[in-house]
Amino acid sequence: MAIPVSPLAPKSYPDLPAIAGVRFATAEAGIKYKNRTDVLLMAFDEGTVAAGVVTKSKCSSAAVDWCKANLPGGVARGLVVNSGNANAFTGAKGQKSVELTADFAAKALGCAPSEIFLASTGVIGEPLDASKFAGVLDTMATRLVDTPWMDPAKAIMTTDTFPKLSGAIFDIDGTEVKINGIAKGSGMIAPDMATMLSFVVTDMPIAAPVLQALLAKHTQTSFNAITVDSDTSTSDTLLAFATGKADVDAIESLDDPRAETFGEALRDVLFDLAIQVVRDGEGATKQVSIHVEGAVDDASAFRIGKAIADSPLVKTAIAGEDANWGRVVMAVGKAGEPADRDKLAIRFGDLLVAKDGERAAVYDEAATSAYMKGEDLELTVSLGLGEGKATVYTCDLTHGYITINGDYRS
Amino acid sequence: MAIPVSPLAPKSYPDLPAIAGVRFATAEAGIKYKNRTDVLLMAFDEGTVAAGVVTKSKCSSAAVDWCKANLPGGVARGLVVNSGNANAFTGAKGQKSVELTADFAAKALGCAPSEIFLASTGVIGEPLDASKFAGVLDTMATRLVDTPWMDPAKAIMTTDTFPKLSGAIFDIDGTEVKINGIAKGSGMIAPDMATMLSFVVTDMPIAAPVLQALLAKHTQTSFNAITVDSDTSTSDTLLAFATGKADVDAIESLDDPRAETFGEALRDVLFDLAIQVVRDGEGATKQVSIHVEGAVDDASAFRIGKAIADSPLVKTAIAGEDANWGRVVMAVGKAGEPADRDKLAIRFGDLLVAKDGERAAVYDEAATSAYMKGEDLELTVSLGLGEGKATVYTCDLTHGYITINGDYRS
Repeated sequence: MAIPVSPLAPKSYPDLPAIAGVRFATAEAGIKYKNRTDVLLMAFDEGTVAAGVVTKSKCSSAAVDWCKANLPGGVARGLVVNSGNANAFTGAKGQKSVELTADFAAKALGCAPSEIFLASTGVIGEPLDASKFAGVLDTMATRLVDTPWMDPAKAIMTTDTFPKLSGAIFDIDGTEVKINGIAKGSGMIAPDMATMLSFVVTDMPIAAPVLQALLAKHTQTSFNAITVDSDTSTSDTLLAFATGKADVDAIESLDDPRAETFGEALRDVLFDLAIQVVRDGEGATKQVSIHVEGAVDDASAFRIGKAIADSPLVKTAIAGEDANWGRVVMAVGKAGEPADRDKLAIRFGDLLVAKDGERAAVYDEAATSAYMKGEDLELTVSLGLGEGKATVYTCDLTHGYITINGDYRS
Repeated sequence: MAIPVSPLAPKSYPDLPAIAGVRFATAEAGIKYKNRTDVLLMAFDEGTVAAGVVTKSKCSSAAVDWCKANLPGGVARGLVVNSGNANAFTGAKGQKSVELTADFAAKALGCAPSEIFLASTGVIGEPLDASKFAGVLDTMATRLVDTPWMDPAKAIMTTDTFPKLSGAIFDIDGTEVKINGIAKGSGMIAPDMATMLSFVVTDMPIAAPVLQALLAKHTQTSFNAITVDSDTSTSDTLLAFATGKADVDAIESLDDPRAETFGEALRDVLFDLAIQVVRDGEGATKQVSIHVEGAVDDASAFRIGKAIADSPLVKTAIAGEDANWGRVVMAVGKAGEPADRDKLAIRFGDLLVAKDGERAAVYDEAATSAYMKGEDLELTVSLGLGEGKATVYTCDLTHGYITINGDYRS
């Protein structure tokens, strides 16, 4: 089944620069896909620190369990990612498979297995034959390069229709510092976790706990604020690595004013990658930003935003370019959060469609319908109860989603 | 847009008998649909008691608010149902519209407006012009009949592709007692409320609080255990009316052993109607019963069942006849309920597919794939943690759902 490239794909891709302290190689291990790269090996110089956020699924994959065990160490020398098999729900076999993979990678890179991070996505429940990596990782370790970043972005794709890259270059103490990030994900995407997979690398010298804190903070408004289909993956993993090669003093504490500068650059990269995941949502033809304001608090606003973003009826109406704001009302109503029907206002873009619990007097069907034909839509729900606000990002629900997911495994 | 009749529609419809104390008429008021009945008037003899369960939506419709206000009275003389317009999120106009409709009906039937129950489904946010009912209800009151029940079942349909009827005849103290029920609903169907609309009438003499208690109890395992698309309607209403015309002593208390006999018959009718709603789920081609057992308690089992039943990835896999049990694992994992990956077992029908946190040794891909081609599927998830169990009923997610909902309003 050939899936067409998302109409929301970027017109061009950034040419990310090399980052001192990290090199990589990709290969075809033939795990599921033929004639495309499906393994990524990333090698970090000594002194690289790691931070990460993983899925909250109760059925997390073997690779996620491995990362959870190694993250407290905060030290990374290698990352192995495969696509085509999630190594999730594979029991003791899955655990052995990650141990074996980490051993192969550690030998190839000359480090301890606990310094290797792993991520796998693809089919759930199929045992992953780690012996396929044996020779492959050794060979990869002999041909590590520092560009182009397009290669790792492509090697981690599954149902993605385009590779996802983002970077930032900014100034710290007069020195140029860089962050490069890649991500994959298209379906089984819902907030309250990291995305399917994303890897971010910086040359900033920064203590692991500070990197972890900034990563966790900015995940909330990026990967945790997106949803494609309300389905939370078993494999979601977001890892950040800091090689420390930029020639500036390290950020040792969140109180260091440079933590904010670095954090903002990190946030921009995470947000850009998260939005790219939404724009490659399975079958997506429109990107929708759902703003909720006037809720009793931010958490309530977020849950209302997610109820709207996850509603199949709202998403199919958007796909049909139908200004069906009644379905937005329905989704607010079902969220179970404080809401007063008679204080509710809804805007599509700048167009007021509903106010004070009924259709707005200024409602203009022709203008609203014309707005719905756009590719990037903004829906704003004002609850009129308090100061709580949140934004959730999603895409529409189309025949493409059904086609892709009615025949993914076979 | 012509929607084909659901492939899961019944092969034949029951010919429900007359129930003493209730008569009805249907009419074409031209609210939205042309050339089909869209209003139902049901008239009850004096002495009829009422019970009801309505949506928990925070944006409930004006008709729902009206029913909520009148249910404590427990007395009914009339019911007016219209299809094509939900009169939801219509503000003060909506409230006036229900008051006016109840006034028209009360005059036509010679009773108090507070003895009239109302229900509306269809588009949300469009003001409902109650003046359309003025002459219509008067005329309807002059041509009330007691059969065929097919007529009211058809008048309340919106995107339904078949009318939904169910009845029970049983013995109480040697006297034949009857329950007739009708329902409508096809999309915007999710548990934790009543269904879109269902009306049940019995000739059993029974006190309103007893009827209410039995109705609430049996809603839990019928209408509250179904989901089509996880979207909870603004208009969900289930009303039960007891005319008391059967020649037996009234059930005045839940301690009366006959309450159990009556309750079981009521449960059967509610369950039959609820399953018919699932089988007419928008775009449905398969009905799926999701059994969860071994959860820490029944409520936890239900939430896990609902997470599976609401998962777009599980539903599209079922549509594609793909035995993708990995997606069932994913849905268990995202439910947020206690679950131990390594104790999980999954069966499709009688076929064991996963056990102890991995694919079962006896897993038979050919047999499982053959099972998926059936029209009625049973999925069982065993958590191995406790005694909690629940069943949730749903349908698959197909191109039909997208087609219907991408162009419903226009």
